[in-house]
Amino acid sequence: MGDLVHVTDNNHDNSSDQVVAVDIYPLSGYYFGSKDPLLLRDETLHVRVQRMKSNYDARGLRTCVEAVMLVELFKHPHVLLLQVKNSVFKLPGGRLRPGESDIDGLRRKLSRKLSANDNETDWEVGDCLGMWWRSGFETMLYPYLPPNVKIPKECTKLFLVRLPASQKFIVPKNLKLLAVPLCQIHENLKTYGPVISGVPQLLSKFAINIIDY
Amino acid sequence: MGDLVHVTDNNHDNSSDQVVAVDIYPLSGYYFGSKDPLLLRDETLHVRVQRMKSNYDARGLRTCVEAVMLVELFKHPHVLLLQVKNSVFKLPGGRLRPGESDIDGLRRKLSRKLSANDNETDWEVGDCLGMWWRSGFETMLYPYLPPNVKIPKECTKLFLVRLPASQKFIVPKNLKLLAVPLCQIHENLKTYGPVISGVPQLLSKFAINIIDY
Repeated sequence: MGDLVHVTDNNHDNSSDQVVAVDIYPLSGYYFGSKDPLLLRDETLHVRVQRMKSNYDARGLRTCVEAVMLVELFKHPHVLLLQVKNSVFKLPGGRLRPGESDIDGLRRKLSRKLSANDNETDWEVGDCLGMWWRSGFETMLYPYLPPNVKIPKECTKLFLVRLPASQKFIVPKNLKLLAVPLCQIHENLKTYGPVISGVPQLLSKFAINIIDY
Repeated sequence: MGDLVHVTDNNHDNSSDQVVAVDIYPLSGYYFGSKDPLLLRDETLHVRVQRMKSNYDARGLRTCVEAVMLVELFKHPHVLLLQVKNSVFKLPGGRLRPGESDIDGLRRKLSRKLSANDNETDWEVGDCLGMWWRSGFETMLYPYLPPNVKIPKECTKLFLVRLPASQKFIVPKNLKLLAVPLCQIHENLKTYGPVISGVPQLLSKFAINIIDY
């Protein structure tokens, strides 16, 4: 779970009245290209659970890091989502290697899925927006450690990744990168699942500034 | 919307890997008493909408501030909610006076609803967790400004309020103060409404430390 910071909040006139701003830029400022398909695991649920179990025995808690990236379209914030096989939506990201930091792992995964080459893009990884926990190998994700669970099996951390006004996204041919409006994602559990459908709420503490030239 | 703070995030080794901790204490450390009932408005929807319209014309955007306060029970975080008339659940808080700051207003409202006297309790108001917007007088709340809405009518801001290990709560007789587990609130839109049912997600970025003696 990274380092813990204890915030003692005795100064009553701290920054609580201040709202952090996030600048977002028009979709038209970004270039979208494609590259060779990424090898995706195509396995049954049983095989997947077996793999997760043996990985857990070898390495302990599985940590995934995912990016929330915003662009502007029709004066409304849109989230960049990857679509796999015309069905499942995912935030860009993936699993950390053992010992890898959240930021390094997220940058590696973003370059692998969204850049032409590794280290080409200087991803600006910001605040952790939320963490979701899985208590077993086949259970749901929850935004808290479920009661009576002492040792979780998986943690998924969401980070705000701030985009510059212009950038190239080079996406593997077997994935689609889509800009989906916040108003379509909000509470749309059926289409986007519990994690993505809650992203508009996680972003709501920010003042989103649309920078339009 | 308070002051805006522009965060330039160029230092790539900033605090992204750090998780902010929130200490929570057992419910048994708190004292719950009662005081005279609070005068609650009992008006029809039509009268309410008329009142909001004339207030808006006179004072502009209506801002509400609400507190998320946590206690521990059965090793699981619980949120303190007020229940009105055995049905509606509310986070403690209320509307700001014209010109009043978020923090001052929230402290005033918390003392009015949860303390024996004004200024008796030193409420520790922390981070803003989220903001919800209403674009009209009869529309839903959304965690973003809906597309094509330039001038919202109402904003509700949620703040984390850290509790000490022990404190007195003195609640008006016509309200009930309840400690409700996160696992019961999460995605329970039907019982708790859109704002409260999303609170577990808003809290998920924190490492919640249960302090048990």
